[in-house]
Amino acid sequence: MFDSEHSDIPGGAPVLGIDPGVSRCGYGVVRREGAQYLAVSYGVLRTPPSAELPDRLATLHADLESLVAEFRPGAVAVERVLFQVNTRTAMSVGQASGLALAIAGRERIPVATYSPNEVKLAVAGDGAAGKFEVQTMVMRLLRLAELPDPPDAADALALALCHWWKAPIAAQVSAKTNGAPAPHGARSKLDDAIAAAVRKQGVAR
Amino acid sequence: MFDSEHSDIPGGAPVLGIDPGVSRCGYGVVRREGAQYLAVSYGVLRTPPSAELPDRLATLHADLESLVAEFRPGAVAVERVLFQVNTRTAMSVGQASGLALAIAGRERIPVATYSPNEVKLAVAGDGAAGKFEVQTMVMRLLRLAELPDPPDAADALALALCHWWKAPIAAQVSAKTNGAPAPHGARSKLDDAIAAAVRKQGVAR
Repeated sequence: MFDSEHSDIPGGAPVLGIDPGVSRCGYGVVRREGAQYLAVSYGVLRTPPSAELPDRLATLHADLESLVAEFRPGAVAVERVLFQVNTRTAMSVGQASGLALAIAGRERIPVATYSPNEVKLAVAGDGAAGKFEVQTMVMRLLRLAELPDPPDAADALALALCHWWKAPIAAQVSAKTNGAPAPHGARSKLDDAIAAAVRKQGVAR
Repeated sequence: MFDSEHSDIPGGAPVLGIDPGVSRCGYGVVRREGAQYLAVSYGVLRTPPSAELPDRLATLHADLESLVAEFRPGAVAVERVLFQVNTRTAMSVGQASGLALAIAGRERIPVATYSPNEVKLAVAGDGAAGKFEVQTMVMRLLRLAELPDPPDAADALALALCHWWKAPIAAQVSAKTNGAPAPHGARSKLDDAIAAAVRKQGVAR
């Protein structure tokens, strides 16, 4: 397996985070290099509200396919919708996330979903962190020169980071299921320690 | 245009009705022959609840693609979700309908959405008609030998019928927009008369 020393994700591949939406769909591609996480790419896929919904969804589907083809992620982390949102939002998020999940399923890429609270807790140490706090922490963790903007892109990067920290646990479980020894038992603790240390730096408000 | 005498849908192609859902996705393919509507195919696409959601959505996507490739519909009629349903249902319906809409958009097939009430009103003359009433009216209108079952399949056939009756109006508007004379001005009235006559027969309860 390529670069398996540096990754719990197959082949040293990056993690693709997706903050699903039809008008604005945030994406963030994060790879690992030693103990450091690096943003390979991030941004927002947009579709014009003036276009017909089937055309918008076809465009989003093609854009998501292109992302997967270009970055060949080893895992996809998608934001899980909250059941508190209204029905219209749920429909729209459902339509966008459905496309992302179907593509990942077809390409046999493992998918994990995380609630916004889980993601905020993972990157900012606070499940109720605000958008700016998430942007700031993502900037620090990925050593970006500037705040990742718009917030949808920062959220997608945060999703990918969240998965990097949680994946080793899943990998251990998976490895045990396969009868093989857990190959990276220490990494989870290292990740936790890194995450905790970074969080303790606090965030300028 | 092939068979344009018998159709307001391009090339005499059938209409594909979709009652979206992840566990059960109803489909119904209806073509027109003179004043008669015929069921070409109908059924339910199912995905096992025991499978992972990305796999289920990938399967549903492939099945919907196969339907479109096999029947080459001239239009797709999709049930529009009600905003009264709960968020979990909306997410799930959104995921399934998003796949159907994205495929139609990619294939440049016109899409129409209809609320359950519109569909029930169109086929049963009653926006609050029950499932059995819809099944019975669909059976009569399409001269089926038996009740279309399960109800998801009957709903999908009803969606296709609903679109057949409403499409001529849209086609007229479209034709006028193109500067061409409305070719089938009388058909809409004929359809209305047929629908009204069939409704007057009532439904055995």
